[in-house]
Amino acid sequence: MPAPSPDDADCTADAFHRGCFTLVQPRKGAHRAGMDALVLAAAAPADFAGLAVDFGAGAGAVGFAVAARCQRASVLLVERSPEMVRYAELSLAHPDNRHLAPRVSILSADVTLTGRARTEAGLKDRSADFVLMNPPFNDGRDRATPDTLRHAAHVADEQIFEAWLRSAAAVLKPRGKVAMIARPASIGPILSALAGRFGGAEIVPIHATADRPAIRIVVRAARGARGVPSLMPPLILHEQADNHFTPRAEAINAGEASLFAD
Amino acid sequence: MPAPSPDDADCTADAFHRGCFTLVQPRKGAHRAGMDALVLAAAAPADFAGLAVDFGAGAGAVGFAVAARCQRASVLLVERSPEMVRYAELSLAHPDNRHLAPRVSILSADVTLTGRARTEAGLKDRSADFVLMNPPFNDGRDRATPDTLRHAAHVADEQIFEAWLRSAAAVLKPRGKVAMIARPASIGPILSALAGRFGGAEIVPIHATADRPAIRIVVRAARGARGVPSLMPPLILHEQADNHFTPRAEAINAGEASLFAD
Repeated sequence: MPAPSPDDADCTADAFHRGCFTLVQPRKGAHRAGMDALVLAAAAPADFAGLAVDFGAGAGAVGFAVAARCQRASVLLVERSPEMVRYAELSLAHPDNRHLAPRVSILSADVTLTGRARTEAGLKDRSADFVLMNPPFNDGRDRATPDTLRHAAHVADEQIFEAWLRSAAAVLKPRGKVAMIARPASIGPILSALAGRFGGAEIVPIHATADRPAIRIVVRAARGARGVPSLMPPLILHEQADNHFTPRAEAINAGEASLFAD
Repeated sequence: MPAPSPDDADCTADAFHRGCFTLVQPRKGAHRAGMDALVLAAAAPADFAGLAVDFGAGAGAVGFAVAARCQRASVLLVERSPEMVRYAELSLAHPDNRHLAPRVSILSADVTLTGRARTEAGLKDRSADFVLMNPPFNDGRDRATPDTLRHAAHVADEQIFEAWLRSAAAVLKPRGKVAMIARPASIGPILSALAGRFGGAEIVPIHATADRPAIRIVVRAARGARGVPSLMPPLILHEQADNHFTPRAEAINAGEASLFAD
């Protein structure tokens, strides 16, 4: 297909963080960024300084949100889809992001590469201070799905976290941190893939409303650390009775709050 | 040591659930029952009918709490320590528990037995509708502990959940449920030990106050089910500013509420 341009009818330029950055992205479909990206980006402390790498960056929502909120961060967007890399490039070139552009760069690479292939693709060992990731979800995890499909999805889920966290462990400096957003169903595969590589996992359940099960978890852990997992207070996105954001979710949506207390 | 009696200076008779049952237990030490037991017992729905087995019952707090709140439940207390079995017997014989005694029995057995040894000890396959367990905690899990001890504790933790859940899977009828209370640090070993035996795990984080990490988790799952894990809304034990129970914790403490919505 032809490369998208900001003038395409198929793409939009959307402001985030109260206009602090703009994302050029597909008009429709699963690749459009939303609350997941902003919640994940909030896993970086506001005073974070160093290189943050956005694995599977898409159009760059997570990385731009980190660059916008963490004034001393530099950001590397890593994306393997040429189409999405093009959106990331358009986002980077967008006039609204001029103030961020000097601190943001793009790498076209597959984060699941291993060994020398990963290094040669530009993902250097021990180069990063923070890795953020929003790995693709698998379908077919609900009770209605036939066992075979569900089992395949479960195996795929385990393999994704194993592959992505293996690469994160390689590119991070010692004590560098990784953060990911995922479905609660993935908590087991995530903890398994963290084991031996990362420690001190902090798990934040994300609930749409306070009275319903979590719809997402954010997990943050430190390379080479040894602490046991903790379950942090949850983030509630919406007030009970209506569709309004809670004050904390609104602050995260606006790029004015961190997910963790640090 | 001589068997304890209710008149001993070393034991106490304590009322729970606003006087609905009484526990004869050691005056001091780690075996005294508290909020953990009552929260775990609340994992059984109030309308639960059938046989509930309390693994590692101690003086019987969890089992008596289930018997007191679930009027149609029968309860089997399973305990391997002769001293704690004696406390369970004293609890069962206590006049305050007269109304519950016909539905409560005691088995002196080690829940980690396997195969024929487990059956011959009285833990019959496919006999139970619910298993509740509060396995012993290991020490040495904090950051200050030397790696060797922490690793040993971690391995012990994994082995305990593996052994206890293997036995729970054996004694439960198909679709029977297991519930356990544990530290959040054990979430990985618990999910690993559940895998292939139990499904639809529901995890409830228990927080001392809303702004601090969870101090316990209750995990409930169904034998032979295939659903993925869920993170439920947390239980907060205390109000922020003081030491008072929250209304929900007070209701659970009083035996007037269930931990789950069913």
